[in-house]
Amino acid sequence: MDTTKKTIILFSGDLDKAMAALIIANGAAAMGDDVTIFCTFWGLNLLRKDYHVKVSGKSFLQFMFGKMMPRGARKFGLSKMNFCGLGAPLMKKVMKDEGVMSIPELLTAAREQGVKLIACTMTMDVLGLKKEELFDDVDYAGVASYLGMADEANVNLFI
Amino acid sequence: MDTTKKTIILFSGDLDKAMAALIIANGAAAMGDDVTIFCTFWGLNLLRKDYHVKVSGKSFLQFMFGKMMPRGARKFGLSKMNFCGLGAPLMKKVMKDEGVMSIPELLTAAREQGVKLIACTMTMDVLGLKKEELFDDVDYAGVASYLGMADEANVNLFI
Amino acid sequence: MDTTKKTIILFSGDLDKAMAALIIANGAAAMGDDVTIFCTFWGLNLLRKDYHVKVSGKSFLQFMFGKMMPRGARKFGLSKMNFCGLGAPLMKKVMKDEGVMSIPELLTAAREQGVKLIACTMTMDVLGLKKEELFDDVDYAGVASYLGMADEANVNLFI
Repeated sequence: MDTTKKTIILFSGDLDKAMAALIIANGAAAMGDDVTIFCTFWGLNLLRKDYHVKVSGKSFLQFMFGKMMPRGARKFGLSKMNFCGLGAPLMKKVMKDEGVMSIPELLTAAREQGVKLIACTMTMDVLGLKKEELFDDVDYAGVASYLGMADEANVNLFI
Repeated sequence: MDTTKKTIILFSGDLDKAMAALIIANGAAAMGDDVTIFCTFWGLNLLRKDYHVKVSGKSFLQFMFGKMMPRGARKFGLSKMNFCGLGAPLMKKVMKDEGVMSIPELLTAAREQGVKLIACTMTMDVLGLKKEELFDDVDYAGVASYLGMADEANVNLFI
Repeated sequence: MDTTKKTIILFSGDLDKAMAALIIANGAAAMGDDVTIFCTFWGLNLLRKDYHVKVSGKSFLQFMFGKMMPRGARKFGLSKMNFCGLGAPLMKKVMKDEGVMSIPELLTAAREQGVKLIACTMTMDVLGLKKEELFDDVDYAGVASYLGMADEANVNLFI
């Protein structure tokens, strides 16, 4: 085992949980660790482009899932005190006032530090998300790859 | 430490989180790992028989908890986009369309692969769940047993 | 690596999740482990004094966050079946009936067993929580310290 590897499963599509995942990932990468964020279910939305991408081959339900899920973290809500969507912009304002990086900035930093962003292919199929809808630099993998990485890491979190 | 052991605490009683837990567990078991799912709090409902079991010795509050909590994963809702219960059947439909195993199928596979399903006895006491209400092949343990297993495992997740 | 160290990130401010964290922490400490609970985001509220503390230097939004977030775990709600706040007292009643320790009791036990309670300074800044508002025996640290502790631990959970 290698004490310089970390994996995070990002299951959640909440602003605050995605922030926690990215802050831990950036912190570990800054200390020289190999970090992987494996995005699954609602966490996949972290990797979505923030504009509409025309794709074909979605079922009606997948089309609806795609419509209703947030396109990128800018549209994420809070897991607590969301107040029908009002909580997220307030949280972002306090974060900015306090000089805390926003999610897009954290994502950029993560990329620059070599944090691997992986989209779970199985949940992409379920939710009908296509590669064209996700960032171009995303990797694709399934649970077996995740487990392979987790076996080599010494910290594995599910967020 | 043994790189072939994994533990998952399933705290959540959401369809999507239970799916994530079971997919990881089945994946790891398929790779030859010893996997334990330790079900606690709402996650205990994953282990409930889906029909009413007459038991005695419940307080009024425990009786009400038992009534209101889902009997088995078939009645689980989604952690996001549940739309008052409408989200779960839609999610199940997309899963079926995409050839993804359902929770009952994942549970069967997990059993066949030797994944250990453990019910947390302390939260059973709190929620008033009796052994007769849970699957017959469930094991029973407390936090000390969980910690013993986690100490021997190299991946420990809380879902 | 040392099999006698555990870390828990407590992100959640829910009664049931805080209980799970404290029960695991106390269990591990009872077995002789070094345990750290790193409280961040809503989990910080576990460490709040349960009375109003007059502090200055909060922005209007931070003042509002402070007002709306629970002062200590006694005011936490449930992550499920909260029924607009009714679920938590019912849960506490069943816990008491079953002889399960309450959160304040679990916190006291944790302290007596030497569990380290750490407040995440970055999210304190965001939410505007001041040291005067938190318990006097809390430690303060950031993500780098957390990662240092996680590297030395063999079980690291995110709750």
